[in-house]
Amino acid sequence: MIKKPILRVLSGESVWPPPVWLMRQAGRHLPEYRATRGVAGSFMDLCFNPELAAEVTIQPVRRYGMDGAILFSDILIVPWAMGQGLTFAEGEGPRLPPITDAAGVDRLDVEGAASRAAPIMETVRRVRARLAADHPNTALIGFAGSPWTVACYMVEGRGGGEFKHARKLIHQDPALFGALVEKLEAATITYLLAQADAGAEALMLFDSWAGQLAPNAFRKWVIEPNARLRAALLAARPDLPVIGFPRLAGPMLAEYAARTGVQAVGMDTAMDPAWAVKNIPPSIALQGNLDPEVLIVGGPALNHEVKTILRAVQGRPFIFNLGHGVEITTPPEHVVELLRILRAA
Amino acid sequence: MIKKPILRVLSGESVWPPPVWLMRQAGRHLPEYRATRGVAGSFMDLCFNPELAAEVTIQPVRRYGMDGAILFSDILIVPWAMGQGLTFAEGEGPRLPPITDAAGVDRLDVEGAASRAAPIMETVRRVRARLAADHPNTALIGFAGSPWTVACYMVEGRGGGEFKHARKLIHQDPALFGALVEKLEAATITYLLAQADAGAEALMLFDSWAGQLAPNAFRKWVIEPNARLRAALLAARPDLPVIGFPRLAGPMLAEYAARTGVQAVGMDTAMDPAWAVKNIPPSIALQGNLDPEVLIVGGPALNHEVKTILRAVQGRPFIFNLGHGVEITTPPEHVVELLRILRAA
Repeated sequence: MIKKPILRVLSGESVWPPPVWLMRQAGRHLPEYRATRGVAGSFMDLCFNPELAAEVTIQPVRRYGMDGAILFSDILIVPWAMGQGLTFAEGEGPRLPPITDAAGVDRLDVEGAASRAAPIMETVRRVRARLAADHPNTALIGFAGSPWTVACYMVEGRGGGEFKHARKLIHQDPALFGALVEKLEAATITYLLAQADAGAEALMLFDSWAGQLAPNAFRKWVIEPNARLRAALLAARPDLPVIGFPRLAGPMLAEYAARTGVQAVGMDTAMDPAWAVKNIPPSIALQGNLDPEVLIVGGPALNHEVKTILRAVQGRPFIFNLGHGVEITTPPEHVVELLRILRAA
Repeated sequence: MIKKPILRVLSGESVWPPPVWLMRQAGRHLPEYRATRGVAGSFMDLCFNPELAAEVTIQPVRRYGMDGAILFSDILIVPWAMGQGLTFAEGEGPRLPPITDAAGVDRLDVEGAASRAAPIMETVRRVRARLAADHPNTALIGFAGSPWTVACYMVEGRGGGEFKHARKLIHQDPALFGALVEKLEAATITYLLAQADAGAEALMLFDSWAGQLAPNAFRKWVIEPNARLRAALLAARPDLPVIGFPRLAGPMLAEYAARTGVQAVGMDTAMDPAWAVKNIPPSIALQGNLDPEVLIVGGPALNHEVKTILRAVQGRPFIFNLGHGVEITTPPEHVVELLRILRAA
């Protein structure tokens, strides 16, 4: 059996033209997603409906022929599975009852989280089976949020701000924050290994708010927890590659890449691929980083920006992606055009 | 006359202990500011009242003995002076009627902007006179927003988001965006030279949203406009130092420092001072970058984080500052403690 292109890249091979998938490719820019979502009910209902969640995971693979299928789920499933309340108000993002003290951390149920997250594993199994049947070159990527980013939401109770409570708490009560991160790590390891057992072929760790942290805090709350997660996954599943995405890490991305043990790092929109090529160890694959706004615009701008990225990374193990999630207003025909440009590269 | 410490640093000297001022030091964390604001009326009323604006500019100098006084004003004064409407809704930030087409750019009045901004220059004169009388070692720092950041607000009509319209527009209609930036540059040069004529001893260019841009866009819309501004200021006032602050520039900070001609760069909270020391030419001073949340927390965390920064920059021309503005909830006694730690360094 020929190894899937994304998995070849994640084992250190430079595959050209590079394989591609897009963060948030399964989502609202697709009419077929909006139709399925209309049937499913709420966002959470869709996440916990294995049949429909598998369908929306497959949709962008079916339409575009993506090389990667990213599990349709959310980084806040782990706190929800640990018993923290979670709702998604339409157009407003997630709301959680904020954790403010030791009692709040104590109440989090690591043991029970696995069974509450079980429907997600059923989604993984169905997606993997369908890929095997219809899209044998497409790799299934599972994921979780990294502890710092998930803890930001758990402490703040919502997104959208600058996570000032979390950024204060790490200095005000590092023991409390550390206890929260420890529980998150334990639950996240179990959650990711369950995804691997169910059929995920690679895992991605999203640390979307890593860029909020000063360098020492970045080392303590981004690099160290991700390195511990990576080590625990490696011990259980030595063959399972991991993509780390500490968004807006800036120059700290080099230290993250060198110290966490991941097989690839995601580059956000602001990262200069030429800088990453020079400063990230060549054994580590790069992934990214087209500006999602350029995908909305399309045309010559799209062609020019894609080629700029390709020139910078040529010769490296590389997976094409955006630097952030697909925007809702992205015309699907621009995604088709993107794949045409890439496959002619 | 002994040169003021901040001006010595900006001429390339390493002054130890380092001089200090804080972004947004004149503002709502101070009870005396809140009292003056209560008398003044709206935020814009206060900006255009030279007597009260001078008073709030001086307040943190009087209370803390800061080495720098930053003019109390706003980066959106320039679009306002060019005739774009501007209001500040309490607790919601600025609102402007968004510029969406060439007619909107054409309507901007560069010629008339100087006279509309005249009250600001009267503030500068009063502050400078009071510093001369009561605080002879404190330097008066004038400022403006950099074209990219100001254009973001002008195109978007507000802050708080990710400036998606502006990020799309630079690809969709670079000629239109370029015309807007050209007018902004002209008005900003006049505005900054007027501040210098009125008594500003150094100038700072705030590019708060520089980190939103992909590398090529960063070069075109951050580095190039700031370099042109710097060159124009240099031609008119060869002795006037400029501090550039492209917030969240990440590794692009090195290219910004090397290519814009500024005398100092501001480091945001996420920047590693050790990285900056290694990658910014040593003739360029560094400024920054304590996490404002640490100043809220105070105590041992404050002491530890301040000393970490000082160790990293020791021997460099350096001005201590935060990595972002002072938060409203900062206890003034923590600022007193910060200055005590710094002056014992």
